[in-house]
Amino acid sequence: MPKRPSVTVLGGGSWGTTVASLAARNTETVVWARNPDTAAEIATDHRNSAYLGDLPLTESLRATADLAESVESADVLVLGVPSQHARGVLERVAEHVRPWVPVVSLVKGLEQGTRKRMTEIVADVLPGHPAGVLAGPNIAKEVVQGFAAAATIAMPEQRAAEMLQDLFRTKRFRVYTTTDVIGVEMAGALKNVYAIAVGIGDGLEAGDNTRAMVITRALRELSRLGVALGGDAATFAGLTGMGDLIATCTSPLSRNRSVGVQLGRGKSLEQIVAEMNQVAEGVKTAATVMKLGAENGVDLPIAREVDAVLNHGQPVGDAYRGLLRRAPGHEVHGEEW
Amino acid sequence: MPKRPSVTVLGGGSWGTTVASLAARNTETVVWARNPDTAAEIATDHRNSAYLGDLPLTESLRATADLAESVESADVLVLGVPSQHARGVLERVAEHVRPWVPVVSLVKGLEQGTRKRMTEIVADVLPGHPAGVLAGPNIAKEVVQGFAAAATIAMPEQRAAEMLQDLFRTKRFRVYTTTDVIGVEMAGALKNVYAIAVGIGDGLEAGDNTRAMVITRALRELSRLGVALGGDAATFAGLTGMGDLIATCTSPLSRNRSVGVQLGRGKSLEQIVAEMNQVAEGVKTAATVMKLGAENGVDLPIAREVDAVLNHGQPVGDAYRGLLRRAPGHEVHGEEW
Repeated sequence: MPKRPSVTVLGGGSWGTTVASLAARNTETVVWARNPDTAAEIATDHRNSAYLGDLPLTESLRATADLAESVESADVLVLGVPSQHARGVLERVAEHVRPWVPVVSLVKGLEQGTRKRMTEIVADVLPGHPAGVLAGPNIAKEVVQGFAAAATIAMPEQRAAEMLQDLFRTKRFRVYTTTDVIGVEMAGALKNVYAIAVGIGDGLEAGDNTRAMVITRALRELSRLGVALGGDAATFAGLTGMGDLIATCTSPLSRNRSVGVQLGRGKSLEQIVAEMNQVAEGVKTAATVMKLGAENGVDLPIAREVDAVLNHGQPVGDAYRGLLRRAPGHEVHGEEW
Repeated sequence: MPKRPSVTVLGGGSWGTTVASLAARNTETVVWARNPDTAAEIATDHRNSAYLGDLPLTESLRATADLAESVESADVLVLGVPSQHARGVLERVAEHVRPWVPVVSLVKGLEQGTRKRMTEIVADVLPGHPAGVLAGPNIAKEVVQGFAAAATIAMPEQRAAEMLQDLFRTKRFRVYTTTDVIGVEMAGALKNVYAIAVGIGDGLEAGDNTRAMVITRALRELSRLGVALGGDAATFAGLTGMGDLIATCTSPLSRNRSVGVQLGRGKSLEQIVAEMNQVAEGVKTAATVMKLGAENGVDLPIAREVDAVLNHGQPVGDAYRGLLRRAPGHEVHGEEW
């Protein structure tokens, strides 16, 4: 049996650390954390208290704050930094990483300005390295605690997806495979915007009906855009689309939903952002999504209201009322939301 | 402008009363309740305390316990009785109802024994009457309270769906249209079984991840069966499939989910059923769904575990572990769950 590939996870946030802890159960794994204290804590105490409280990590997981060292030994690179840092980190990594090493992104966002997906950034900075995504309805704290969960790994080649699948799956963490990289990346980026929409409704104390309605119509809206951008419709109905949207929209632990809840209760975006120690990707993605919709001729009434609240000073109550004013048509063929 | 059709709702349970209360805002509406006390309370106090507590109903809604009288004036019949009573009530109605009057079912279940959909029963008992369904993610108490919600009305003819749409929609209750009657009926019947599966997980204290995973894979499973039975795949991704599944699986008010939660906590089915004053359709549907799957060559691993717990004495913990044991494959093309 050939040697199991070793894994290096770039990023010591909640999800990067969690995926590293999963991989460490299957193979040699190191996590790179920018903050040396975080790296030391993971390496010594098997904890990441800033992001995952007191939850114990896999003991064999190594950690370092030295980016070059972490990357040199990697057979598989996992990208777990916020979207705005992805290109910079990959550029620093480029001279240290071995040829052919696949890069698996955990990042649910698009690069601001270029609006590129993370695997497109990998293609820019590390040409020749196969790039894919691991995503799904995964709340980091629950996965670390060993609750049953599932994710999908998307790689351009099915065989590569199957080989990488074995590095991340455990008895409690199911990993499916697909080759629809675009669909999985777009689902991950788009759903954060819709999680904010659902959170606003919850903050306004709309009911479970309203939430189910907004989630369902949101999935339809984001699928239409995702398919226009080259994704596969079946992906949006799967774990990384619908599944992730449901988890994000119903879990009290979701950052994006939480931004919406606080907006719904009347807090300002500035205040909310100032109080969070983690980034809610949807806040940055909303305007980008509107541009993608406009360029591709896809109407996005739900995202438009989120963008209006986040970026154009629209009161949250008006946003919801605006949605309700539209008259419904044929559920599938209708153009309206 | 032609006269608005008058509506008669058969069934004074929580959802029948709620739909009657919605229709009464648009047109002359009467609800038939088997229990004379319920009828009197709705007619006089504009309440249905057995099912909807103290929530006020539309004042113009009339009510009667006289089935013949309620039906004679109807231009539209709405069927809101539990599935096991549907045929009997329709047979009693047959000699009183005017020709051509459309019948809209609210019933989310199949007839036991025949495994027929409600519109098939209408075709048996009231041939010549167009039959359709109104369904969606609708928790009765929330709709009565005026929370925003949405539903879909399915009729064999799109024009009929559009005319009926106007009788049920209000400012806060959006009604979409479709012609996929089979899909909407099957989605409604099937989702109750999967709501029990999700409830079991919640009762076992699995996390939000687990719930999102089971909901997502459940939707895929029920879609595969529904399409095999003649439904349209897009319907299962819509309000009456995904939307209703999400509402049912996340609302503490859902009866089917609640059965699962109690099973997960260790109560016996007998005890749970004895303590409920309303019927959880999924309990009866589980065995039927397994037969439909077998006849149509569709593997239903999630429904099988629910059926095993409900009808074959399988311990709930084993059911969940059984699901987790299966190895995942390609997310879309894989045969396994």
